[in-house]
Amino acid sequence: MKVSLNTKILSKNEQFAEQNRRFLAEHKLDCLNLISSPGSGKTTILTRTITDLKDKLRIGVIEGDIKTDYDSQRIRAAGASAIQIETEGACHLSAQQVYWALNQLPVGDMDIVFVENVGNLVCPSAFDLGERGRVVVLSIPEGDDKPAKYPGTFAQCDVVLINKIDLLAHLSFNIDRVSADIHTLNPKACIFQVSATTGKGMGDWYDWLLGRKKKTD
Amino acid sequence: MKVSLNTKILSKNEQFAEQNRRFLAEHKLDCLNLISSPGSGKTTILTRTITDLKDKLRIGVIEGDIKTDYDSQRIRAAGASAIQIETEGACHLSAQQVYWALNQLPVGDMDIVFVENVGNLVCPSAFDLGERGRVVVLSIPEGDDKPAKYPGTFAQCDVVLINKIDLLAHLSFNIDRVSADIHTLNPKACIFQVSATTGKGMGDWYDWLLGRKKKTD
Repeated sequence: MKVSLNTKILSKNEQFAEQNRRFLAEHKLDCLNLISSPGSGKTTILTRTITDLKDKLRIGVIEGDIKTDYDSQRIRAAGASAIQIETEGACHLSAQQVYWALNQLPVGDMDIVFVENVGNLVCPSAFDLGERGRVVVLSIPEGDDKPAKYPGTFAQCDVVLINKIDLLAHLSFNIDRVSADIHTLNPKACIFQVSATTGKGMGDWYDWLLGRKKKTD
Repeated sequence: MKVSLNTKILSKNEQFAEQNRRFLAEHKLDCLNLISSPGSGKTTILTRTITDLKDKLRIGVIEGDIKTDYDSQRIRAAGASAIQIETEGACHLSAQQVYWALNQLPVGDMDIVFVENVGNLVCPSAFDLGERGRVVVLSIPEGDDKPAKYPGTFAQCDVVLINKIDLLAHLSFNIDRVSADIHTLNPKACIFQVSATTGKGMGDWYDWLLGRKKKTD
């Protein structure tokens, strides 16, 4: 007897990523996966976005950290629902963890769920969470050689937020070089220069986010 | 027949870590593994250390990056030998890669080899390279919550260099909190506050390094 195997065999992560895609479609939810080095400002970008868009976009957050619930506390203080995942050593979130967290969130009241991945510019980009888009954050103090040195992460995203531009006066950082290196890897990536601390440049990021909402409405 | 298995079965990485330990002992070489987030200043710390200690400590460097040889170019420009390893996507250096690189370096002319690991505050700490000590770099812009959020890396090191203290005037960072969190995880860790850009505080780091040389002479 010959058995034909036409079904693609999916890994456990891919199976849960598929479940997450179905969940997001059923609930008409947008979902962005935020990836960056530790300390580039992902949580501050989220808290400011939650505050500034509170009348325009209903936001929920899934927080990934190796340890502590510091970030989900900050998200809740800004007025949004947050579910904390502590990975206990793992260097990235898995689709299964995100599936569990999606089912804890009050998604009926949300337009978008942000997944703040573990701070790591390498591993998270290799794991599909079933998200609808990816945002990479690169902060000025990290240096302008990072897209060339970590190409995989910058090649697979929709947006790069260049954060902490308020520190440009104190540091050497060539934004033209970074933009050129990102576009060599990823011609379609949108690049926004922002300071989540001062608010400078955040409007362009908000316009991009709200534009996605119109498309899914 | 009963076969007694008293020999510990080592992983491939552990086997090469053992080979590296033997290599370092035979050549009377010190070896420090530098671990940090991307952009915390590892290479700048090394180039300044090479320049400032050129008459006191003979330094070689093994550079780990996912892509590019930018960092080994900077090390050579500072006057030291460097071997670049491009991991092509891997998130940490392996002991086997370090074994290969040790055998490329002119170690007869060296007191110490620094291994600058891939920029990643999570994965490198889980891989023994056979090094004689570990140095973790944390820079001010990354934020003072990082030891608590990435405990594994800070628990397993000999030194923490708090770098970019020249930016303290522009950022909120509680050094007392960081020191307390590090010492909770790792009571014996030495903590030095430095700016590799301005040179401030580097003397204490140099004293620590030269003290190790005296012990191995």
